[in-house]
Amino acid sequence: MYSQSFEECIQACLECMKACNVCYDACLGEEDVKMMAECIRLDRECADICAFAAKTMQSNSPFAKQICILCAEICEACGNECKKHDHGHCKRCAEACFKCAEECRKMAS
Amino acid sequence: MYSQSFEECIQACLECMKACNVCYDACLGEEDVKMMAECIRLDRECADICAFAAKTMQSNSPFAKQICILCAEICEACGNECKKHDHGHCKRCAEACFKCAEECRKMAS
Amino acid sequence: MYSQSFEECIQACLECMKACNVCYDACLGEEDVKMMAECIRLDRECADICAFAAKTMQSNSPFAKQICILCAEICEACGNECKKHDHGHCKRCAEACFKCAEECRKMAS
Amino acid sequence: MYSQSFEECIQACLECMKACNVCYDACLGEEDVKMMAECIRLDRECADICAFAAKTMQSNSPFAKQICILCAEICEACGNECKKHDHGHCKRCAEACFKCAEECRKMAS
Repeated sequence: MYSQSFEECIQACLECMKACNVCYDACLGEEDVKMMAECIRLDRECADICAFAAKTMQSNSPFAKQICILCAEICEACGNECKKHDHGHCKRCAEACFKCAEECRKMAS
Repeated sequence: MYSQSFEECIQACLECMKACNVCYDACLGEEDVKMMAECIRLDRECADICAFAAKTMQSNSPFAKQICILCAEICEACGNECKKHDHGHCKRCAEACFKCAEECRKMAS
Repeated sequence: MYSQSFEECIQACLECMKACNVCYDACLGEEDVKMMAECIRLDRECADICAFAAKTMQSNSPFAKQICILCAEICEACGNECKKHDHGHCKRCAEACFKCAEECRKMAS
Repeated sequence: MYSQSFEECIQACLECMKACNVCYDACLGEEDVKMMAECIRLDRECADICAFAAKTMQSNSPFAKQICILCAEICEACGNECKKHDHGHCKRCAEACFKCAEECRKMAS
């Protein structure tokens, strides 16, 4: 049965997925793409695991907690990369990543 | 650049993804699973294309419109199956599917 | 850089993804769908994490090992469920799952 | 029921997914990343739709043909971008893309 208690974590995953996909696209359009290469890579990775985690919680997977633990780690790596950059999309993405990491850890505990 | 004009469509896709995943899980737990087999199948399909469409719009893909056209078709098929059933999760899912189909068609036009 | 040493693990993931998707579809068409509900659920989960793991290795993700560890656990759960059933598709799926779990553990060690 | 007649198309999708993910990773590591930005973007898109198409055929989706038509278009766009570049990974990726587009069109016809 779908657990209402996952709601905040799902929401944080979907917000993070959005911020990462937007940041990914914006990084690819920056003047200095080379400087953003690691950010691009982690944005994709993080967006994809967030989508996966959301699906897993929504469909009540027995592995939801373990996926959230992994999601938290990837979010932290992505947030740490994003916060190195001054672009607005990177700042917003870092924030969404750290928020999501926190919710995922809370959910898995 | 991320287009604010996709916002409503993205939101409808994420709502539909959630309704489909919840319906999928609930159908698998119903007394008469056999009667729900087509619903289960379409729920998965629909949840997955909705996630794909959302990602595509968020990352500003040149194929976003085409993916939304396909998403609309799958949403309609899923909605039509769901509305045959009396379960609350099916009713809610059908509603989310038709709303998403409408937003996807609007976005692609 | 794409590592040739992942090749066997990627191949096992793609084989397992296929076996799980085929088993998923076949289970939905079985006479007694209710008995297959857990198999259907785990088939989807396992197919999706295998696809994720393959992508991760192919694109040289820094999280490839962690994803493979999780993939191995899900493969084992799916294999253990599948092996309870006598259908040919379940037997083949269990085999692909255990093989994939083994390759994922080897890769992550 | 899983159709053996999809086998070649599934194989082409999985080959293309691999070539795209490998090219994506290699492009991010190139000296001149800016020149590869469009290639990176299309590699991700193409890898993801190929994975989606493979899953869809393997699980016997009623939408497999429509997804393959879309997959063919994305493969062609990706192949056309990749063939502009001299890197070995781009050349190999272009080849896999055009092969996959051809198989997807054949499958859908």
